[in-house]
Amino acid sequence: MTAPFNIVVLAAGRGTRMASTLPKVLHPLAGKPLLAHVLDTARRLDPVQTCVVYGYGGDAVPHAIADPNIAWALQAEQHGTGHAVMQALPHLGGSGVTLILYGDVPLTTLETMRELSALAAQDSLALLTIELPDPSGYGRIVRDGSGAVVRIVEHKDADAGVRAIHEVNTGLMALPTQLLAGWLARLTNGNTQGEYYLTDIIGMAVADGVPVRTCSPRHAWEILGVNSKVQLAQLERLHQANVAHTLLEQGVTLLDPARLDVRGMLLCGRDVSIDVNCVFEGRVELEDGVSVGANCVLRDARVGKGTQIAPFSHIVEATLGSHNHIGPYARIRPGTVLAADVHIGNFVEIKNSQVDDGSKINHLSYVGDSTVGKKVNIGAGTITCNYDGADKHRTVIEDDVFIGSDTQLVAPVTVGRGATIGAGSTITRDAPAGELTLSRSKQSSITGWQRPVKKPKA
Amino acid sequence: MTAPFNIVVLAAGRGTRMASTLPKVLHPLAGKPLLAHVLDTARRLDPVQTCVVYGYGGDAVPHAIADPNIAWALQAEQHGTGHAVMQALPHLGGSGVTLILYGDVPLTTLETMRELSALAAQDSLALLTIELPDPSGYGRIVRDGSGAVVRIVEHKDADAGVRAIHEVNTGLMALPTQLLAGWLARLTNGNTQGEYYLTDIIGMAVADGVPVRTCSPRHAWEILGVNSKVQLAQLERLHQANVAHTLLEQGVTLLDPARLDVRGMLLCGRDVSIDVNCVFEGRVELEDGVSVGANCVLRDARVGKGTQIAPFSHIVEATLGSHNHIGPYARIRPGTVLAADVHIGNFVEIKNSQVDDGSKINHLSYVGDSTVGKKVNIGAGTITCNYDGADKHRTVIEDDVFIGSDTQLVAPVTVGRGATIGAGSTITRDAPAGELTLSRSKQSSITGWQRPVKKPKA
Amino acid sequence: MTAPFNIVVLAAGRGTRMASTLPKVLHPLAGKPLLAHVLDTARRLDPVQTCVVYGYGGDAVPHAIADPNIAWALQAEQHGTGHAVMQALPHLGGSGVTLILYGDVPLTTLETMRELSALAAQDSLALLTIELPDPSGYGRIVRDGSGAVVRIVEHKDADAGVRAIHEVNTGLMALPTQLLAGWLARLTNGNTQGEYYLTDIIGMAVADGVPVRTCSPRHAWEILGVNSKVQLAQLERLHQANVAHTLLEQGVTLLDPARLDVRGMLLCGRDVSIDVNCVFEGRVELEDGVSVGANCVLRDARVGKGTQIAPFSHIVEATLGSHNHIGPYARIRPGTVLAADVHIGNFVEIKNSQVDDGSKINHLSYVGDSTVGKKVNIGAGTITCNYDGADKHRTVIEDDVFIGSDTQLVAPVTVGRGATIGAGSTITRDAPAGELTLSRSKQSSITGWQRPVKKPKA
Repeated sequence: MTAPFNIVVLAAGRGTRMASTLPKVLHPLAGKPLLAHVLDTARRLDPVQTCVVYGYGGDAVPHAIADPNIAWALQAEQHGTGHAVMQALPHLGGSGVTLILYGDVPLTTLETMRELSALAAQDSLALLTIELPDPSGYGRIVRDGSGAVVRIVEHKDADAGVRAIHEVNTGLMALPTQLLAGWLARLTNGNTQGEYYLTDIIGMAVADGVPVRTCSPRHAWEILGVNSKVQLAQLERLHQANVAHTLLEQGVTLLDPARLDVRGMLLCGRDVSIDVNCVFEGRVELEDGVSVGANCVLRDARVGKGTQIAPFSHIVEATLGSHNHIGPYARIRPGTVLAADVHIGNFVEIKNSQVDDGSKINHLSYVGDSTVGKKVNIGAGTITCNYDGADKHRTVIEDDVFIGSDTQLVAPVTVGRGATIGAGSTITRDAPAGELTLSRSKQSSITGWQRPVKKPKA
Repeated sequence: MTAPFNIVVLAAGRGTRMASTLPKVLHPLAGKPLLAHVLDTARRLDPVQTCVVYGYGGDAVPHAIADPNIAWALQAEQHGTGHAVMQALPHLGGSGVTLILYGDVPLTTLETMRELSALAAQDSLALLTIELPDPSGYGRIVRDGSGAVVRIVEHKDADAGVRAIHEVNTGLMALPTQLLAGWLARLTNGNTQGEYYLTDIIGMAVADGVPVRTCSPRHAWEILGVNSKVQLAQLERLHQANVAHTLLEQGVTLLDPARLDVRGMLLCGRDVSIDVNCVFEGRVELEDGVSVGANCVLRDARVGKGTQIAPFSHIVEATLGSHNHIGPYARIRPGTVLAADVHIGNFVEIKNSQVDDGSKINHLSYVGDSTVGKKVNIGAGTITCNYDGADKHRTVIEDDVFIGSDTQLVAPVTVGRGATIGAGSTITRDAPAGELTLSRSKQSSITGWQRPVKKPKA
Repeated sequence: MTAPFNIVVLAAGRGTRMASTLPKVLHPLAGKPLLAHVLDTARRLDPVQTCVVYGYGGDAVPHAIADPNIAWALQAEQHGTGHAVMQALPHLGGSGVTLILYGDVPLTTLETMRELSALAAQDSLALLTIELPDPSGYGRIVRDGSGAVVRIVEHKDADAGVRAIHEVNTGLMALPTQLLAGWLARLTNGNTQGEYYLTDIIGMAVADGVPVRTCSPRHAWEILGVNSKVQLAQLERLHQANVAHTLLEQGVTLLDPARLDVRGMLLCGRDVSIDVNCVFEGRVELEDGVSVGANCVLRDARVGKGTQIAPFSHIVEATLGSHNHIGPYARIRPGTVLAADVHIGNFVEIKNSQVDDGSKINHLSYVGDSTVGKKVNIGAGTITCNYDGADKHRTVIEDDVFIGSDTQLVAPVTVGRGATIGAGSTITRDAPAGELTLSRSKQSSITGWQRPVKKPKA
């Protein structure tokens, strides 16, 4: 915006129908609080001041958002939307335009906010309206013969003629801040609920001869608010459908757009394919040619070119190189960095470890706090004993090592380059490079031994 | 009901289009036979007598339902709905009202059953009708100028005028038992199919001057019957959508209401969140603040306050305490009881074991038939050898024990309080409290050993 | 077809909106390239010649399809559909009928292709048309008073009257090959795009007095083309819904038809039940009474009667016998053959192994390259060490063997009939039949040992 520009976000409501102890605006949509959606979009308008009116839940809301650039206005008791905006007024610069948003209406787009603000900059009260197939319950926009807005009539006050109007008030508006201040000062609460209604200023604008200009959002979902878990779930799916559509348009192959959940940012290269029922959280980056199998969960991960992730894999805070083969049933935990051509197989857990090019950990292993070199083969059932009950220690496995199955590597320990560890060994001291190291008891057989037989029940 | 009250459920049909050896009424919807849905609802009307007419599959139906309060009337050959009700007649008390339900119409609500029965108590034939957008195939309700039902015309017999009627007969009815008995005695099978149609008694009621009163179900799905797997799948999803909606209205957060399956009873406290694609079977109780990750399966389980279940967990017949961390990929099997602050991690199987406060079994372990004390740490790859090939034995691990990785505990065995077990040990005798116990071979290295090289192909 | 019969498939387009390096017709639908869907259906018409016109991607398309019975005609530069068919002409027999299909319209049914071809055999140009609720963008079919097709008007050239027509041209046609050749020779590219339009031959047919006969597909999805990943995803789901519907009609129980993916052929016996979110790839056969739990993935597998597969199982290129219990979390890999009554439990990987009747591998094991006899019990954490870093070797476990937990079997090795292996053993030499074999160190305890305590942070 060119003029000094304020944003007010109303976020004081409890949301009784949410049936929750969490304030309504903190309920997550796509993994992020409803209010944070509004603020993240609003921020891109580059406002001089953003003021959030909070109330229910007290400091929980400012604490959760934790943005030092926001001015927080406490509405200790809720006396209506007009009263809420009054609390924000002291925080606003006196000139320019103020845009009024709602903390429980998360999906309003930047374009809509921008258009509304631009209209208000023409010394107008700018109102977001929308034509609804079923306008029941909404305030109707009544216009005169010239098309000018003359008033808003609440549904309960509307006669049959007014109820036939499909254009409704969304509650979102923008207006010159000085006009807002003046009209707020004149608001009264002389109604049944004893509340101050922000909507009443539209009548004041008409009375004062200030033009009321309207625009409409491109999508109906932009104005949907959340008052219940039913509505939250509906918006979640609408949002996820939008995300899926955007990914498809970018060329990502989705086997089922209705079974994708992106809670954060999913960045995809070319020729990425995502199978059914995957969940992406935080910031996930999939480079060219990555394929993600069915039922995978990824959070805050980066996956290099051509890497294939098989079904049931769970990857969190990790970096995977190119052309890896991951899973099925691979769990990759925070702090893991895999280089190129790494294979991590089934029932394998990797934590806080680096694995270099061409190494394989294919079966039933736990590798934690380890540095694994190139072309290492770690046999099934290998466990790095990184925790001694008090501290965590590192395991170092150098290039070209072969670890036999069912080996325990008791950290701190180093297995030297090219070493081989015999199956079933407990390695408590460093294993020299190039040699076979093992700890093993002699195999013996006991002739005439009788296997236990099932005892008769008492 | 105040009057003596009978319920007849027609459940004799084969359901040829189900293409199954199982009698139609035994096919499960939400994990429970269709017929059991009808009976469970009907039972709440507190009838004096409930008679189920069975036929196809013979004793399979009574055997599966196994309710001693039900009178079973065999309809050995199927000669129509009227004939079916005739079989029930000897089981019914002669006074009061009889409500006629269908074993393949599983979702009729208690309210609808109650309203229909109450209408019949007014010395009327009470008929459940419904307005359908597309009434094709259904019998139409023809009324006179005063709105009184005068007859029902089957679709195939209807002229254009009657076909334009959207109100149809659902087949559900209630009526004074004495009237029912009299009309059944007058039913004939002089039609093309040679069947006795229950519907014909409506004409008799009109002819006899008995008022035919109608009411309608609140939901169209209440009258849907199952004749094929296509219809079964449709009803399954309708039912699951209803269940999801009810949970949302109770305040449960569902990430995708269309990807939830509840087959039994799911009881949720406050601030419970369920991620996509979870399945709940039997009776599952989730206390306040429980979160269930994506793709979990729970059956007959109770989960304490604040416990977090990560994706891909599978929990059956188990009790989990508060503030547990479960999964991902945790399998918790019957007879398991976890106390508070227990951690069960990936690729861990717990069976028939008790784990006390603050204990952790985080990686790749099998703990069965065990009693685990407080603040125990069980290392990766630990296995309780509970089965000797004949009997199962118990493992006891006392408080503050640290079990090193890849340990086998050969039951019966006790690890004393505060003991430590060295990694890789096979523990066959009790380990004394407070001491380090281990079984370990000396680690040795073989200089000059050559790793096998790939043999050339023959 | 009785007459000599050609099929031409146009498959030269790039599909820029797919945003992929893969030629459009090679993008998979239900796991198979779009073009292969068309060819697999067309093949059943038993044509004398099938010619595919390829272009974008060069040899990638013929290489991917790899069918020696197809004639490939290169359209080096794309100058319209007419130009494309010109490239095919030299490959076609001169008599009989030619059917023109599209490599990016994958779901046209055999019935529709057959009906169209039969119409053309009546010395007609046969055109597939369809009535669309919203015909925008499509060429409209203009008919005269007698109902004869007189021309096709493209949407952009249509006046309001023509735009009101809902019958549109699908592009699919069949016609006598000689007429096709003559009309192609007369096509010109004197239009804005400078392209040769195949559609123009319809006007030529009318002008030449050749009857233009039309028919329509039974389903609207038969004529849907793929130009973007959005459309690909839509067709994928339409196709999967069709597959699910067919399975339901065959009597398969699907807990959620919208959460089933079949990419290949799924053959089901009687009383098969498939829970939510399963994926089937390649050729999968499920015999009578098989139940597949939620979230399973099966590829190229055969599952015997009554076998139950629990959730999260992953089965590829394997044969499972009857009455097996598989999973949850079982991974069965290529080359595995399980006999009857086999149990494969959680976190177990089986690869290239045969397991005979009544054997159990229930927990956390890796069995690879093994032959397992009857009634064998393999304890938790057992690992066959089949790879020595160079070659793979086999493990043989004879009938009635009991393998204690956490055993490593270092192949090549044989465990004789009825042998027992003690828990925690590393078996490097053959274990004699009937005896107890183990390798174990003495258990000892260290009095006065102090467990490490957490070091203070530096």
